[in-house]
Amino acid sequence: MANAIKGMKIRGAPLLGAAAALALAQTAYKSHAKTNEQLFDELEKTASLIRSTRPTAVNLFNAIDTILNTVREHSGDVKEKERFLIKKALEFVDNDAEMNFTISENGARLINDGDVVLTHCNAGELATVEYGTALGIVKIAHKQGKKITVFATETRPLLQGARLTAFELVRENIPVTLITDSMVGYVMERRMVDLVMVGADRILQSGHVINKIGTYTIAVLAKENHIPFYVAAPTTTFDMKSSVEQVVIEERAQEEILKIFNKPIAPEGVRALNPAFDITPPELVTGLVTEKGVISATPDQIKKIAVD
Amino acid sequence: MANAIKGMKIRGAPLLGAAAALALAQTAYKSHAKTNEQLFDELEKTASLIRSTRPTAVNLFNAIDTILNTVREHSGDVKEKERFLIKKALEFVDNDAEMNFTISENGARLINDGDVVLTHCNAGELATVEYGTALGIVKIAHKQGKKITVFATETRPLLQGARLTAFELVRENIPVTLITDSMVGYVMERRMVDLVMVGADRILQSGHVINKIGTYTIAVLAKENHIPFYVAAPTTTFDMKSSVEQVVIEERAQEEILKIFNKPIAPEGVRALNPAFDITPPELVTGLVTEKGVISATPDQIKKIAVD
Repeated sequence: MANAIKGMKIRGAPLLGAAAALALAQTAYKSHAKTNEQLFDELEKTASLIRSTRPTAVNLFNAIDTILNTVREHSGDVKEKERFLIKKALEFVDNDAEMNFTISENGARLINDGDVVLTHCNAGELATVEYGTALGIVKIAHKQGKKITVFATETRPLLQGARLTAFELVRENIPVTLITDSMVGYVMERRMVDLVMVGADRILQSGHVINKIGTYTIAVLAKENHIPFYVAAPTTTFDMKSSVEQVVIEERAQEEILKIFNKPIAPEGVRALNPAFDITPPELVTGLVTEKGVISATPDQIKKIAVD
Repeated sequence: MANAIKGMKIRGAPLLGAAAALALAQTAYKSHAKTNEQLFDELEKTASLIRSTRPTAVNLFNAIDTILNTVREHSGDVKEKERFLIKKALEFVDNDAEMNFTISENGARLINDGDVVLTHCNAGELATVEYGTALGIVKIAHKQGKKITVFATETRPLLQGARLTAFELVRENIPVTLITDSMVGYVMERRMVDLVMVGADRILQSGHVINKIGTYTIAVLAKENHIPFYVAAPTTTFDMKSSVEQVVIEERAQEEILKIFNKPIAPEGVRALNPAFDITPPELVTGLVTEKGVISATPDQIKKIAVD
C-alpha cells in the first residue's frame, strides 16, 4: 500500500485516507498478536510507514488517527479489537462515498443550467472511494438535467486532468474541453468560464486550501476576473492543528518535469523544481463545499463543522 | 518559407519579420519581371502567402509593409528595384540584431546582482536574428558580472521554454530552473522571483501586449504578488493601427495539446482549445523595454517612439 501511494497508483486526498484505513485493516487481519501491546506495535509500524509516504494530504493522517483512537478506546480483547478495527476501517471507506454523495448534492445547487465549470487536476471517482468531490458535483448537476460543460486543465506534470478528469467526463457524456495550465487566464478573461470547482488535499482552520500545484494560480485569476472559486472536500480533509507555516509541501522528483513519456524535454544540465501542491489563501476562496453544507473559508465556520 | 513559418520551424516575432523580409528578397532575386507591374505582382503574391501563415505576430506584416513601401518609392528601373529590395531586406535583418543588442543593454539596467528572473516561452536568439530580447537582457546582465538565475516556464503545448530557453541559458552557463506553467504562482508567492521579463508578438498603441499563451496569467500573478513585469520588444513589434478587439488570436491544431511526442495524453472524444497567444492589458505591465529605451505601456509613450 505504501508503494502504491508513493508511486501515485493510488492518489487523491479522500482515496489516500481510505487506503490508509485499509492498510491498518490489513495489518489487523494478518496479525498474530497475543497482547494489545503487540497488536498496537504492529499497527503503529504500519501507521508510520503509511505516514511517511506523502506529507501533504491530511486525510491520510486523519484516517490513521481516527481509527487507532477508536480502537484504543474499545474495551475488548485482542481478537475483538482486530475485528472492531476492520469494521471501523470499512465504515471509514463507506463513509467517504456517502460524504462525497452529499458534497455532490450540496455543490450541485451552486451550478446553473448552461454553466461552464473549470476544474483542475482530478477530484472525481478516481480520487475518492466513489462519486468524487468537485467532479461529483458536476456529475450530479448533469444528472439533474443542467447543461454543463467543463474546462479541464491538463495538470502538468502528471497530467491528471487529461488522463483522469477527461476520462471520467467523457464516460458520463459531459462535454469536456482540455486546456493547458497556461490557458486558464485566457478562458477566464474571455468570459468563457462561469465558476471554478476544485478539490483539496488539506484545508486549514485558517481557511487556507492546500491542493494540486496550479490551484493558487487559478484562484488568483478567478479573483481578477470576478469568477467564483469553490473548493469541494469532506471534513476529513480539515486540519485543525497546523498553521500555514507548518504545512509541508511535498517536492517530487525532477524527472517528472524533465521527461514526458520517459523522453527528455529539456537539455542536460537543467534542473527542475517540482512542488506537488500550493496554498490558496482564504480571501481567494468563494466557498467550501462540504458534506455538512457550503460554508465560507473562515475559522469560525470551519470550526463549527469540523469533526472533534 | 511559408511552410517553415506555419510549421513553426521559424518562430519568434522578430525572426518572423526577418523571414518575411528574406522571402521578399528571394522573390526579387529569382524574378524575371520585365516591368515594375510584373515585379510588384510577384512580390504581392509572396506577401499574401506570407501574410496568411500566422495572424498574430505583427512583425511579419510590418516587415512586408516597410520593405514594399520603400521599394515602391524607389525611382530606379526593375533591376535596380530588385537590387534595392534585396539590400533593404538584408538591412532589415541586420537591424533586428542591432535593435536586440540595444534592447538587451537597456533592459540589463533593470536587473540587479543576485536577481531571479522568470521568463516565459523563448525570447532569445532562437526567436530573433541575434541576441534575443528578454533573454538578451539576461545574457548581457550575466556578462556584466551580475549573478542572475532564471526560472523558465516549460511553456505548453510546444515546450519552447524547456527546449529553447533552457538550451540557450545552459549554453551560456546561466543557472536555469525549469518549472511547469502551473508553478508560476507558487514561486512568486514564496518570493522566489524578483522580476518577470518576457517578449512580445505585438504591442498595441493602447499598451496591450500580445504574447505567448500564459503571459497574461503570469502578469496577473505578478501584480498580485507585487513583482515587476517587463516586456522586451523592438518597435517593429508595435501595431499602431489595430484596436484590441481587432487582434486575431491564432488558434492552432488541437493535436498540439491532445498528443505529446505523438502519443495521446487524453481519451478519445475529448476536444481541446489551443489559442497560441493571449492579451495582457497595459495596467499589468511595469514597463516596455525597447531599443529606444524603457517606457511605460501608455499610448503617449508608445506613440513617441513608434516608427512612422
